[in-house]
Amino acid sequence: MHGEPAAQQTAQQTAQHTAGTVTARARADGRLPGLPLDVPSTALFTDHYELTMVQAALRAGTAHRRTVFEVFTRSLPPGRRYGVLAGTGRVLDAIENFRFDPGLLGFLRARRVVDEPTLRWLADYRFTGSVTGYPEGEVYFPGSPVLRVEGGFAECVLLETVILSILNHDSAVAAAASRMAVAAGGRPLMEMGARRTHELAAVAASRAAYLGGFDATSDLAAGFRYDIPTAGTSAHAFTLLHDTERDAFTAQIESLGRGTTLLVDTYDIAEAVRAAVALAGPELGAVRIDSGDLLLVAHRVRRQLDELGAPDTRIVVTSDLDEYAIASLAAAPVDAYGVGTRVVTGSGHPTCSMVYKLVARARGEGPDAPLEPVSKLSPGGKRTLGGAKWAARRPDAEGIAEAEVIGTGPVEPELAGHLLQVELIRDGAVTGREPLRAARERHRRARAALPLSATQLSAGEPVIPTEYRLPGR
Amino acid sequence: MHGEPAAQQTAQQTAQHTAGTVTARARADGRLPGLPLDVPSTALFTDHYELTMVQAALRAGTAHRRTVFEVFTRSLPPGRRYGVLAGTGRVLDAIENFRFDPGLLGFLRARRVVDEPTLRWLADYRFTGSVTGYPEGEVYFPGSPVLRVEGGFAECVLLETVILSILNHDSAVAAAASRMAVAAGGRPLMEMGARRTHELAAVAASRAAYLGGFDATSDLAAGFRYDIPTAGTSAHAFTLLHDTERDAFTAQIESLGRGTTLLVDTYDIAEAVRAAVALAGPELGAVRIDSGDLLLVAHRVRRQLDELGAPDTRIVVTSDLDEYAIASLAAAPVDAYGVGTRVVTGSGHPTCSMVYKLVARARGEGPDAPLEPVSKLSPGGKRTLGGAKWAARRPDAEGIAEAEVIGTGPVEPELAGHLLQVELIRDGAVTGREPLRAARERHRRARAALPLSATQLSAGEPVIPTEYRLPGR
Repeated sequence: MHGEPAAQQTAQQTAQHTAGTVTARARADGRLPGLPLDVPSTALFTDHYELTMVQAALRAGTAHRRTVFEVFTRSLPPGRRYGVLAGTGRVLDAIENFRFDPGLLGFLRARRVVDEPTLRWLADYRFTGSVTGYPEGEVYFPGSPVLRVEGGFAECVLLETVILSILNHDSAVAAAASRMAVAAGGRPLMEMGARRTHELAAVAASRAAYLGGFDATSDLAAGFRYDIPTAGTSAHAFTLLHDTERDAFTAQIESLGRGTTLLVDTYDIAEAVRAAVALAGPELGAVRIDSGDLLLVAHRVRRQLDELGAPDTRIVVTSDLDEYAIASLAAAPVDAYGVGTRVVTGSGHPTCSMVYKLVARARGEGPDAPLEPVSKLSPGGKRTLGGAKWAARRPDAEGIAEAEVIGTGPVEPELAGHLLQVELIRDGAVTGREPLRAARERHRRARAALPLSATQLSAGEPVIPTEYRLPGR
Repeated sequence: MHGEPAAQQTAQQTAQHTAGTVTARARADGRLPGLPLDVPSTALFTDHYELTMVQAALRAGTAHRRTVFEVFTRSLPPGRRYGVLAGTGRVLDAIENFRFDPGLLGFLRARRVVDEPTLRWLADYRFTGSVTGYPEGEVYFPGSPVLRVEGGFAECVLLETVILSILNHDSAVAAAASRMAVAAGGRPLMEMGARRTHELAAVAASRAAYLGGFDATSDLAAGFRYDIPTAGTSAHAFTLLHDTERDAFTAQIESLGRGTTLLVDTYDIAEAVRAAVALAGPELGAVRIDSGDLLLVAHRVRRQLDELGAPDTRIVVTSDLDEYAIASLAAAPVDAYGVGTRVVTGSGHPTCSMVYKLVARARGEGPDAPLEPVSKLSPGGKRTLGGAKWAARRPDAEGIAEAEVIGTGPVEPELAGHLLQVELIRDGAVTGREPLRAARERHRRARAALPLSATQLSAGEPVIPTEYRLPGR
């Protein structure tokens, strides 16, 4: 946890000053064969029915009708004041790498998922359409059209599953991380939840947590893939391995330096703190507390460290934290937080309810057939609004957001400067790629432009209302 | 959803009669290059601190002390009556593929995660120890030692993160799936949650859901990787693409056959059912309802189908189901369920709280140094019980489980026939691999041997108590 300052600084410098270059250079050198983190093809991350729809549409002659699909949620998770869009960068990678190679096609043939004409069409699949959307890190509200995919029906419908997988997972983690970042004030936050979620979901979760405001991760794979600073020093097992706690502390200090973080709650905390300072001196970097009444223990340990002449030794706490526990420690002498389970599982909301809906399609096959809005109409809470939508966030006189405005007609002139969607893919080519840090910084700004009540942790309605401009309805 | 019977039957036959062979054959042919589903190395799915502990222990000369680590949970999620162990097969793959190749080592060097002696040791890393545990699919209770890893400290501690990632994720999904399978009685259950979780977590979730009692998945990647039957026919977008609902139904029937499943809730359900039977005839395979009051609508649709002369046409429902919703439809004329969000997110408990704890280690470096139990002692709810543990499930006179018995001393003679742990890895070689269907069948049997109250959905205590046999304490 927040280990040796030197190592940590190095990692942060790497991330700040050479973002992407370590990874990119290593790849260019060909030194990274067979790594589990770059997915060569994403085409199989697809529901069976996407392919049967393509087959039926190919046969009916409707597969290449021009279409517009939109991603949005009907509501935020209960009590949440804002959503955080995360995963857009991963979506761009997924669309670029969406390919049916001979292996996949052989599987689809052996299982008779689709017929031969469909397999031939899939073999040539490349997405040639366009994607626009909210830039990554933006906040969103019910109805916000966070992603729009335009192109032929078949090429667009195939992308549904993987796009939703990414946005639903990553945005859930980012929303939890953002609330924790607010609760932590300026204190550093480390994500350490890899062990509580699927091993590859963990890598995406670290990315989303960093976007939402975390400062580091325990997960080496996330450090490797996304250049997020990584940190960590030792666990209880290291203390228990040695004949005495002092032996363990000595071993750690000799190897990792006096600036390391010592874990002090294996046996008796007061005794451990005494031993830690005796062995490392006042240069001891930090002590970590992973159990017990953190508020009480942090006060006791701070007093003890000060009395022992180690006023610069920091206190790191890591036990079952969430945004509420973090907020409750605001007045405690805590210098950094480590959060595991609750951030990677979305703090009670492990997924968003984003859907991918056909909102317009051409009535006819030609490239110039006019688009018509379409929507599901049957009762039961799943109605949709037809038509491709623009979105703007209207500020008040002080520049604070007062409404999410979503429309299908012309944009009102006073909203023209406040439109939210940006271009991400044009005619199949990715145009909207950006460093992860840009999305992280955008999120910080977007959250700061919301009414202050957005950052209250207590349950409430979305902090700004969604207003619709639907001419002709 | 539960599409064309012919296609579905083919998939099920494939799974039943040739489990593994499609995948294995395709791989042997070399036809599957670059697929995203086999992870060549799992070594980077590791927390930073595992490596710094190895470094410090190498320097201190304690890295190769013999150790025993155990995986267990301190409690089940609130209200749950039993846990379901899933992921063991994936753990075996992960341990086999845990290798530090030059690319990973270059990253660790560039980031200064560990020093050069540690990098040299990592370069030669192969797990040479032994693993025992509950067989996959078994149920478990608080304290159950579901996995035991024995070997040198360094080689064992490194595996902590990836082992916990897999077991915590997969067991959470399997537990939810098991409850849903109980609620569904004998009706088929399809997992369709890929879009609500990380794209690779989705593949593992399909596997765990199948283990827990599901019959099929929407996720093609899960079909490919684990030979789980896949199914699906169409979404609302397919209906909306066409000029009329009848056009869409006609297109689907022409391509997928009369046995297909038609989605009937895009506009007016009664009208859609009428059109569906008019177009497909009484051979229509099924209709799917994805919104509304499912109980009411299912009764109406059943009556309408019967009146239209389609008594064999099945009704599939798929809207926001969980175990409670499934149970509430027990008396409704529903033939199959599709479950998304709630199964892949563990139905309210997206992770388990499994931990990986050092429970014994040699006091000294030699291969014959005797093992001593060790345990965390500080107050705060995270105390552990030292010593390697055996586990048995004691049956009553009728053969129904009455207690989970966990001990550190000699096994009581009357429990000798009821021990739970099996060998999984011996001296680094996997010995416990088995087909997924074996774990699925084991789970069905293990659940059936629990007291009947285990299958009540209402919240309660673990259905059998955990008893400890700890001589000398």
